Amino acid sequence: MVELGKKLFFDPRLSKSGFISCNSCHNLSMGGSDNLVSSVGHKWHQGPINSPTVLNSSMNLAQFWDGRAKDLKEQAGGPIGNPGEMSFTHDLAVAVLQSIPAYVEEFNKIFKVDKIDIDKVTTAISAFEETLVTPNARFDKWLKGDDKAITKEELAGYELFKSSGCTNCHNGPAVGGNSFQKMGVITPYTTKSAVLGRSAVTKDNADRFKFKVPTLRNVELTYPYFHDGGAATLSKAVEVMGQIQLGKKFTAEENASIVAFLKSLTGDQPKFGLPQLPPSSDTTPPPQPFGK
Amino acid sequence: MVELGKKLFFDPRLSKSGFISCNSCHNLSMGGSDNLVSSVGHKWHQGPINSPTVLNSSMNLAQFWDGRAKDLKEQAGGPIGNPGEMSFTHDLAVAVLQSIPAYVEEFNKIFKVDKIDIDKVTTAISAFEETLVTPNARFDKWLKGDDKAITKEELAGYELFKSSGCTNCHNGPAVGGNSFQKMGVITPYTTKSAVLGRSAVTKDNADRFKFKVPTLRNVELTYPYFHDGGAATLSKAVEVMGQIQLGKKFTAEENASIVAFLKSLTGDQPKFGLPQLPPSSDTTPPPQPFGK
Repeated sequence: MVELGKKLFFDPRLSKSGFISCNSCHNLSMGGSDNLVSSVGHKWHQGPINSPTVLNSSMNLAQFWDGRAKDLKEQAGGPIGNPGEMSFTHDLAVAVLQSIPAYVEEFNKIFKVDKIDIDKVTTAISAFEETLVTPNARFDKWLKGDDKAITKEELAGYELFKSSGCTNCHNGPAVGGNSFQKMGVITPYTTKSAVLGRSAVTKDNADRFKFKVPTLRNVELTYPYFHDGGAATLSKAVEVMGQIQLGKKFTAEENASIVAFLKSLTGDQPKFGLPQLPPSSDTTPPPQPFGK
Repeated sequence: MVELGKKLFFDPRLSKSGFISCNSCHNLSMGGSDNLVSSVGHKWHQGPINSPTVLNSSMNLAQFWDGRAKDLKEQAGGPIGNPGEMSFTHDLAVAVLQSIPAYVEEFNKIFKVDKIDIDKVTTAISAFEETLVTPNARFDKWLKGDDKAITKEELAGYELFKSSGCTNCHNGPAVGGNSFQKMGVITPYTTKSAVLGRSAVTKDNADRFKFKVPTLRNVELTYPYFHDGGAATLSKAVEVMGQIQLGKKFTAEENASIVAFLKSLTGDQPKFGLPQLPPSSDTTPPPQPFGK
């Protein structure tokens, strides 16, 4: 199941163009993100929001910045059908897979059916995504008792991270990902982004500008930061968070120590061979990168 | 050197957008090609020509369909600076790499210099590409004496491939890649493509519509076919080649047997772990997918 999901994650034939795969925006060579302010979609559509990392995403209380998908399986169907992302339909994506004998065989082996459907596609993709955890961060080693795993500066940063209140939101196994919080608690966040956040889902005005708190695991790799990608560097992100969420102005030294601590949260990246995708057959509908 | 080249091959930061890497159009999950009629470039630019496979490309007498690059090293610099492909400049690409400490360290280790330059970048990429060979095709096993490695139909296809004259052009270790030949020897090739072929390089009218004969290794994986991607299937490609190059009309059975033979040329695909790219630093110029 995981091997099948891995192939599907890397398969651009799940997009109308045949050019965009899950891995395009959640690039597993780059911390499970695309390192862009906002993502490139079908026909170079500019996405409205920064792509969150897929790493450790199974630990999130919900998926997408506004939590509109309850889990990874529900999330996986979103981009496939989004006109500004992969721009396909679930039916067309399934028809492509159904035309590829090696996929049909794999689905049959795992699900005991001859007919592929989108539910099975997203089940397999999410099964793969659940494996994308990043253990053995130096901070984890320190937590487990290895005093030398982090430096004095990183430890000072961790102490400051706790005492300043960052842990109010960034806590738990993923150091975040387990609550929706308002962006701009103390002072408003200045952004050109029109994205409303959680209120788009709940229709409750009280949820305006609430976003899922991102995990800070591997945050060194998942720049730029915030839902609008507005902070290019960790230093900027720490500065802005201090100001708008905590009403604090960190000194340069304090900022550097928190950044140092955050870099100790980078874990072992998922290790696997580049998947080989089964070839299309003569009856596979060809991708349409440049059609209407 | 190969490990460094592998990272560079997968690194979209060699493009202006930060979204397109060598692997985007020479996808090593898909036979080293993008399986599109013509490629998607910067801002969704439609490429003028079908992306040739990078697999076994070190065996080609020259690179690109028109042979305008003498080797893989020269080829590797082309797409980086092509406005319709990665749309960067060599200087900007080098500046990005130079701002990434882990890359600087790797280049230093291999080339004993502190300053990265485009020559070293393309040297490393081509060193990686030289490893992308695909041994142990069933046809190779048969050549080496394993009588059961190919079927009777495949053997019949091979005999027909030889006796019909396909081997006039498709010969040698890569079953092609070692000469430029006219597309449309017997009857003209009908295409909407405006690409001139070899004459664009030699400025010799006699070279109009001459193209590098593509390798047929892994041809099962590198659809669609021809410089214009005009043949969606192997069957169509064999039919058209028979007509325009050999003046032959293969029967359905003959066509099927040649296609069967061609599928016996699929070798072991390169096996390696998905590379992990070193993160950008605070001074790395951010990608510009949506800028001017």
